[in-house]
Amino acid sequence: MPVNKGFVLASRPQGAAVAANFGFFEKEAAQPGEGQVLVRHHYLSLDPYMRGRMDESKSYAASQQIGEVMIGGTVGEVVASKNPAFAVGDKVVGMGGWQLYGLSDGKDIKKIPVEGIPIQAFIGALGMPGVTAWHGVNKILKPKAGETLVVSAATGAVGSIVGQLAKAAGARAVGIAGGAEKCAYAVNELGFDACVDHKAEDFAAQFKAALPNGIDCLFENVGGECFSLASRRLNDFARVAICGLIASYEGAAPSTLDDLRILLVKRAMIQGFIVSDHPQEWPQAIGELANLTLAGKLKWRETVAEGIESAPEAFFGMLRGKNFGKQLVKLI
Amino acid sequence: MPVNKGFVLASRPQGAAVAANFGFFEKEAAQPGEGQVLVRHHYLSLDPYMRGRMDESKSYAASQQIGEVMIGGTVGEVVASKNPAFAVGDKVVGMGGWQLYGLSDGKDIKKIPVEGIPIQAFIGALGMPGVTAWHGVNKILKPKAGETLVVSAATGAVGSIVGQLAKAAGARAVGIAGGAEKCAYAVNELGFDACVDHKAEDFAAQFKAALPNGIDCLFENVGGECFSLASRRLNDFARVAICGLIASYEGAAPSTLDDLRILLVKRAMIQGFIVSDHPQEWPQAIGELANLTLAGKLKWRETVAEGIESAPEAFFGMLRGKNFGKQLVKLI
Repeated sequence: MPVNKGFVLASRPQGAAVAANFGFFEKEAAQPGEGQVLVRHHYLSLDPYMRGRMDESKSYAASQQIGEVMIGGTVGEVVASKNPAFAVGDKVVGMGGWQLYGLSDGKDIKKIPVEGIPIQAFIGALGMPGVTAWHGVNKILKPKAGETLVVSAATGAVGSIVGQLAKAAGARAVGIAGGAEKCAYAVNELGFDACVDHKAEDFAAQFKAALPNGIDCLFENVGGECFSLASRRLNDFARVAICGLIASYEGAAPSTLDDLRILLVKRAMIQGFIVSDHPQEWPQAIGELANLTLAGKLKWRETVAEGIESAPEAFFGMLRGKNFGKQLVKLI
Repeated sequence: MPVNKGFVLASRPQGAAVAANFGFFEKEAAQPGEGQVLVRHHYLSLDPYMRGRMDESKSYAASQQIGEVMIGGTVGEVVASKNPAFAVGDKVVGMGGWQLYGLSDGKDIKKIPVEGIPIQAFIGALGMPGVTAWHGVNKILKPKAGETLVVSAATGAVGSIVGQLAKAAGARAVGIAGGAEKCAYAVNELGFDACVDHKAEDFAAQFKAALPNGIDCLFENVGGECFSLASRRLNDFARVAICGLIASYEGAAPSTLDDLRILLVKRAMIQGFIVSDHPQEWPQAIGELANLTLAGKLKWRETVAEGIESAPEAFFGMLRGKNFGKQLVKLI
């Protein structure tokens, strides 16, 4: 019988999440009952939203319960099936959580729809983060040719796709990222027009210089000071999509909009969103992202931690921007 | 020759606007040249946006220039015309400013389109304030039957129409106003479901009690503390229209959104707007508002100051909420 290993939420963080908030377990993997499928996970996705689920505070989704396996997107292979819709060997994507094996009734897993792309992409650029970018860009920001789109956490799993979709729409893509290496990658590899290092001493001046025509679209992943600065460079009729506020997730001060008059004067719009509200869009989004990928027009980078035991540390690193591109945990 | 009287902007306010910021003039009225029309104003509209125009700071429209006649909506009668489109006796609405007579080339005035309604309505419920309410409700907030819409400055020129349009859409209309008399009027005369006095000591508790199902639509005219409180009662997928921020117009602290996470968690949307961006909507809006009025389904109240000399004091009073309903200056 295979052994399952993983982490449950052991306690809620006080401020920053710490190792003691996670409880490691090791036990025999469950066997599928009638209608069920056992999936051996190959990769686990680590994403900022998980930090919100660890808190008790009301969020857009129910809090993660204490003692439950940590929530998380997974991609893997069916190793046992009592569900006629799935056969052993099928590659599937789902929300299997922080563990090696996941049991599913088949409703919360999907077969990977496209061949020829590494399967971990379906929890990255062609999964939740990619669809998040696609929705924010195409359904909220709607950049027009010649407009300027700014995205924070520009080399992250979402931000890197946002910038490339903005370029595909003919817009100027300006990133904000942490460190010169990430900024160079955004410009040289991802095709951003500019990327500004928020750790640089003269960040504000560099940011201004990168925005000769102001900001028409802002895809916000971070919040905090960078958001305040960006809000003051919005153009008339600017659109802002609030996708994440990672700067405020770890008990830091809330991110604010310092002056509502900006919205009035600029007739600007701010929309918060969460991609799971829009399941009907996923097939189109994944199809378009897959086509771009197969045409060599969509790139990304991965930071891969090895082994389920490394998940907590990799998660803490991601919350602090130590990852470079999509943060994964390789489980096989 | 008729004598024109009025006010120019004499100086920019430092904090609150004061009488010395306005310069009174009295001089012979200009006579129309070829293509021009002379209008004798019957009523001048006083509106919060004028305070923004007095500042040098960049606003949604160019600042009022020092020495120019104060901007303002007017309704009146053509008394001399060298423009074939207008005859003496025509009732017209325009932006004639704080003065008894206005000269126009005919492009910035419009004949009053509906009979049987007092002409001052066309600078109020059937003019800029009414169209503002119409746009915010119908194009941004889109209240559904059973939803709750909150409007601040609920008995003002805009707010009173907002509430009645919300009721017409089948929504619950909750007002915020200053004082028990205004609140009673909102409920008993305008048909609001509830109206809460922001001057009451237990305002927060009353406001909460008036919102058993939270807020789906927020039409914001004021900003400040009331906005902060309202932002914490937004429901999932709430819409907020920022129409005005009068609490911050007189040098007070800027109105803020204290916690952007509200937008993310609630997937809420905030849109600033200014009605003059949407001239194509005015005929439909005025037509619908006129039909409601003629059917007895749209009510409003006016506070009328007498004589052009009273305009500055009436304006200061309006900025402090001393008016009750639409603030007008009667000029004839």
